[in-house]
Amino acid sequence: MLEYPKLSYKRTVTLRANYFEIVTCEWTDECVTSMHHHEWSSCFIYVEKGTFQDTINLGLKTEINILETGQSTTTPIGAKHELKCLSKTGKTLHIYIPSFGRTENPISLEQKIFSSKNLDFKELDIDSESIKWEKLLSALNLIRDNSITTHSPYFMNQLFSGILPEMLISANLLAQMKTTLATYEASPILNYIEEELIRNICKLFAWESDQQNGITVPGGSAANLMAVHCARHKIDPNIKKIGIGNKKFKLFVSKESHYSFEKACVILGIGTENLVKIDIDEFKKMKASALENAIQIVLANNEIPLLICATAGTTVYGAFDQIDEIAKISQKYKIWLHVDAAWGAPVLFSKNTRKLMDGISLADSITFDAHKLLGANLTSSFFLTRHVNILKDANDVDNCDYLFHQNANGIDKGQMTWQCGRKGEFLSFWSIWKSVGTRGLGDFVDRLYKIRNEVLEYIKEKDRLELLHSPEYLNLCVKINPPNKKYSNFNWSKIVRNKLIDKNLAMINYSQDENGFFLRFIIANPFLESYHIKQMLDWCLEIE
Amino acid sequence: MLEYPKLSYKRTVTLRANYFEIVTCEWTDECVTSMHHHEWSSCFIYVEKGTFQDTINLGLKTEINILETGQSTTTPIGAKHELKCLSKTGKTLHIYIPSFGRTENPISLEQKIFSSKNLDFKELDIDSESIKWEKLLSALNLIRDNSITTHSPYFMNQLFSGILPEMLISANLLAQMKTTLATYEASPILNYIEEELIRNICKLFAWESDQQNGITVPGGSAANLMAVHCARHKIDPNIKKIGIGNKKFKLFVSKESHYSFEKACVILGIGTENLVKIDIDEFKKMKASALENAIQIVLANNEIPLLICATAGTTVYGAFDQIDEIAKISQKYKIWLHVDAAWGAPVLFSKNTRKLMDGISLADSITFDAHKLLGANLTSSFFLTRHVNILKDANDVDNCDYLFHQNANGIDKGQMTWQCGRKGEFLSFWSIWKSVGTRGLGDFVDRLYKIRNEVLEYIKEKDRLELLHSPEYLNLCVKINPPNKKYSNFNWSKIVRNKLIDKNLAMINYSQDENGFFLRFIIANPFLESYHIKQMLDWCLEIE
Repeated sequence: MLEYPKLSYKRTVTLRANYFEIVTCEWTDECVTSMHHHEWSSCFIYVEKGTFQDTINLGLKTEINILETGQSTTTPIGAKHELKCLSKTGKTLHIYIPSFGRTENPISLEQKIFSSKNLDFKELDIDSESIKWEKLLSALNLIRDNSITTHSPYFMNQLFSGILPEMLISANLLAQMKTTLATYEASPILNYIEEELIRNICKLFAWESDQQNGITVPGGSAANLMAVHCARHKIDPNIKKIGIGNKKFKLFVSKESHYSFEKACVILGIGTENLVKIDIDEFKKMKASALENAIQIVLANNEIPLLICATAGTTVYGAFDQIDEIAKISQKYKIWLHVDAAWGAPVLFSKNTRKLMDGISLADSITFDAHKLLGANLTSSFFLTRHVNILKDANDVDNCDYLFHQNANGIDKGQMTWQCGRKGEFLSFWSIWKSVGTRGLGDFVDRLYKIRNEVLEYIKEKDRLELLHSPEYLNLCVKINPPNKKYSNFNWSKIVRNKLIDKNLAMINYSQDENGFFLRFIIANPFLESYHIKQMLDWCLEIE
Repeated sequence: MLEYPKLSYKRTVTLRANYFEIVTCEWTDECVTSMHHHEWSSCFIYVEKGTFQDTINLGLKTEINILETGQSTTTPIGAKHELKCLSKTGKTLHIYIPSFGRTENPISLEQKIFSSKNLDFKELDIDSESIKWEKLLSALNLIRDNSITTHSPYFMNQLFSGILPEMLISANLLAQMKTTLATYEASPILNYIEEELIRNICKLFAWESDQQNGITVPGGSAANLMAVHCARHKIDPNIKKIGIGNKKFKLFVSKESHYSFEKACVILGIGTENLVKIDIDEFKKMKASALENAIQIVLANNEIPLLICATAGTTVYGAFDQIDEIAKISQKYKIWLHVDAAWGAPVLFSKNTRKLMDGISLADSITFDAHKLLGANLTSSFFLTRHVNILKDANDVDNCDYLFHQNANGIDKGQMTWQCGRKGEFLSFWSIWKSVGTRGLGDFVDRLYKIRNEVLEYIKEKDRLELLHSPEYLNLCVKINPPNKKYSNFNWSKIVRNKLIDKNLAMINYSQDENGFFLRFIIANPFLESYHIKQMLDWCLEIE
C-alpha cells in the first residue's frame, strides 16, 4: 500500500497586513506541504529550528535544497515549491510579499484566462491631478486581475505561454538598471552578455567563430526585415547612399512564411508584388523544384533574385522547410539564404530534433526569437549572420559623433542597427540559459515533444477530433467536428474556441484552410502537462 | 535658533537573513527618521502602536500619509521616505526585502557610477550545465553592482537619468502579464491604455479629436522612420505594392537633427544623399529661409520634396526649431511636416515653456519619447499623426489572417505597424502620468528649469566655465577651460570627462564643435537638485 506523506503542520499567522503576511509553522517528523505556489507573491522562509528539504519547481527545472537552523531561502515569484521537515521537530518563519497589495479574491492562474468584461476602463483614464501611490497600486491590481493570464497552461493563443521566475527577476533588474544598448560605455556588462548570447546561439548553427555576428532587434519581424536589408546591401552597397532606383528585386518565400516579409517589402521600398510565394508540399514545406522554377523565371526577366527565406517552424503548422535542399539552390544561384527560425530554432538544443534544421550552417542569416518557446521576455529577438561586417556596413551612418565616440572601449552596437536606444530584454534569455544550461534547454524541448506525443495518442482515440497534419514540431492543428449535423463543419472549431473564451476556460488560437476553421494548440508552457491539453480537448468535445 | 527634530529611536534587529531583515523600532514623542532610501529594497512598515506620519518622496512628487495602530504601508523601491512619531510613544515593525539578496557592501546610488573594472566577465558565460537559483541570484547581483548607475543624479550620459518607483512597479507587472500588443484580444486593457495615452498626448498638440492617431514604436528612431514611411505612402500609395522605382525623394532636416533620419533613408531605400541638411542660425535652429531655398532647388530639379522635419529639442544643444515658421513653408509647398520632439515634447506640459513649440498643431506627425525626460521605461516611443488612416493604409498587408481575425472586439494595432509582437512598455508612462497627473508633469518641467537657472548663475560666476549657447531647454553645453596653458583648450573638457568616470564620480556626455570638445549636462533626473550639478562643476574645476 502506498504511503502518503504527512501533510499536517501547525500554522500560525503572526501578522497579516495589506502588503505582507508573517506566518510561523511548527513541524513534526516528516511533515510536508504539497507542491503549491503563491500566485504573484514571493515567499521568504527562515528556519528557526530543524532541518528541512525545500523543493522548488522553476518550470524548466526542479531544485532541491537542504535548509538547516538559521538558514533562509526565497521561493521566487512564478515558481512552485514544497517544504518537508526532515528532523523530529522544526519551526519555520514565512513572509509572503504580494506584488502590489493583497487581492481579495486571488485568482487561480491555472483557471482564469480572461475576465475583464466587468472592468470599467474609464477608471484607467488619466487626469490633470495626481492620485496617491495607494490608488496607483489599486489601479495596477485592477489591470493585472483583468488581463489575459498568459501564465496559464490553458493559454495557447500566441507562440508563447508561461512565465518563468528567471524572466521575472531579470525584468526587475533590467528596470532598476534602465539603460540603453546603443553604446558600450553605457552598458558594458549587457553588451558583453549580448555578445555571449550571440556566440552561443551561433554555436548551435555550427558557424565558424570568425564568421558570425548578430544583434538583438525588436521582434522577429524586425529580424526578417534586417535580413532583407543586409541582403540588399550585399548586392549593391550604393543603395545606402543613392536609394534603390529602378532595380527590380525579387524575394522567395513559401506560402506558409510569416507575413513580416510582406511588411519588409513595404518598408524597404521593394514592394509587395516582388515577393514570390512558392508552393508548399503535403507536409506544408516549400517545394524546392517550385523554388528553382521561380528563380529561373525571375532571371529570365532580368530581375534580381535578392533573398530566399526558408522557414524553420511555420506559424500555423510548425513545418520546417528543407534547409539543406534549399541551400543547394541558393548556392547554385548565389542568392542570400535567410532562415526564419523565430519559432522553430529551439529544436537545435536537442539531439533528437536537431535534424529538422539540417543545412542551417549554410544560411547567410537567421532569425531567432527567445521570447517564444524559450520563455524570455518580449521582445528578445536576434538577427544572426555569417557576414561579419555586413551589419555595420549596411547600417552605420555619419552624423552621430555625439553618441559613438572614437575612443570607446568596445563596439558600439548602435552602429549595427537602425535603432538608437535599445533595451536589453535579452537579459531574461541569458538568465534562463545560464540557469538551466544548454542541456536543460534541450531537455525542455524533449519534454514538450513527449507531451505532444501523449496528446497525439489522445486525439487518435476521439472520433470528433481531426488532426490536420503530421506534426513535426509543437503545433497541433486540430479540427473539432460538430456533435451533430445541425452545425456546420466549416465553422464549428471557431465556435468552440469562442465558447471556451466566454467561459474563461482556455484561449486557443485558430486558423483556416479551404475546409474551414481549426484550432492550433501550442505546446510551449514550461508548467504544461499533457492532462492540461486533454482537459481542453474534453472541453471542446463537451460543447454542444 | 532652529530646532532640529529628534532623530533618536530604539532600533532592534529581530531577524537578519539573506533575503530579508525584520526590525522593530520603539519611538518617543516627535521622533523622526531623516529622509533616506533602502537602495534596491522595499520597506514594509506595520504600526504596532501609536500614530505616525510617513513622508514618501517618489521623485516626481512627495506624499504624506498618517498611519494609525494596526495599519501598514510600503515604501516602494526607488523612493525615499521619512517616518515621524506623532504620538507620545509608538512601536513599528519593518521588513526590508532586497531585490536579489543582501549585498555585503551596499553601494550608495548617489556616489557610484561605474565600477565594473574588477569584474571578470567570464563568470557570466553560459555553460552546458545548470546552476542553482542561488547562483543565478549572485550573478544578477554582480551584474547590478557592476553596471552604470543610471539612477544617480551624477549620471548625465544619456537623455534620461533616474529611476521612478512608478516605472519599476509597472515593469514588474508587465513582466508578470507577458503579452503582445499585436491583437486586441491578447491584451484588451493594454490596448485601451495605449489609446488613452495617445489621446492625451494628442491633446497636448491641440489636434482635433477625429484627426489623430498613433502607435507605440521601439524608439524615437523608429518613430522618425515611420514618419518618412507614412509621408512616402501619402505621396504615392502604389509604392507599397510596386516599390519606390525611379522616384527621387528629398527630405529636409536641420544640421542638428538626429542621425535617425540618415538611417531611415538607408532602410527605406531612399538613400542618404537625398537627405538635405539645412543650415542653422546662431541659436542652433533651422534657418527658414535656407529651407525654402533648398525646397526650390529640389523642385527646380524635378525631384519630389517628401518631408520636412523640425526638431523640438536637439540632442546636443536642446534647441527648438521654429515650428510655426517652418509650418508655413510646409503648407505653402504642401510637404509633410514631421516634428521630432523625442527629447523636447515635455515642454508642452508647462504653460511656461509651451511656447517653444508654437505651431505644433500644424504638424502632420510627431515623435514623442516618454523614456527620456518623462522617466518611462525603455523604449516608450510614440508616433503620432493627424492622418487617421495612414498608419493602417501604409502598413497593413494580407497573409496574416491567422493573427488578425475579422471578428476582433477592437482594433488590432499590429496592422498599423511593421512589428508583430510588441511589448507594452508604455504602461510605465501610464503609471507615471496617472500617478502625478498632467499638472504634476508640468510642475516637474518647471522644477527642472528652476534647477537649470540656478546652475546657469553658478556657471557665470566661474571663470573657467564657458557656456556655449543660450539654452532654451535642459541641455547645458559647457566648455571646461584648462587650469593653465600647459593643456590644450581643445581637448581639456574631454580629459576632464574621462577623469570623472575613472574616479567613479560622474558620467557626463560630451560633444564637439569647431573649437573643440565640451560637456553636455542634462537636467532630467527627478531626484536631481542644483547642488548635484554645482558639485560636478566643482569636480571639473578641481582636475589639474
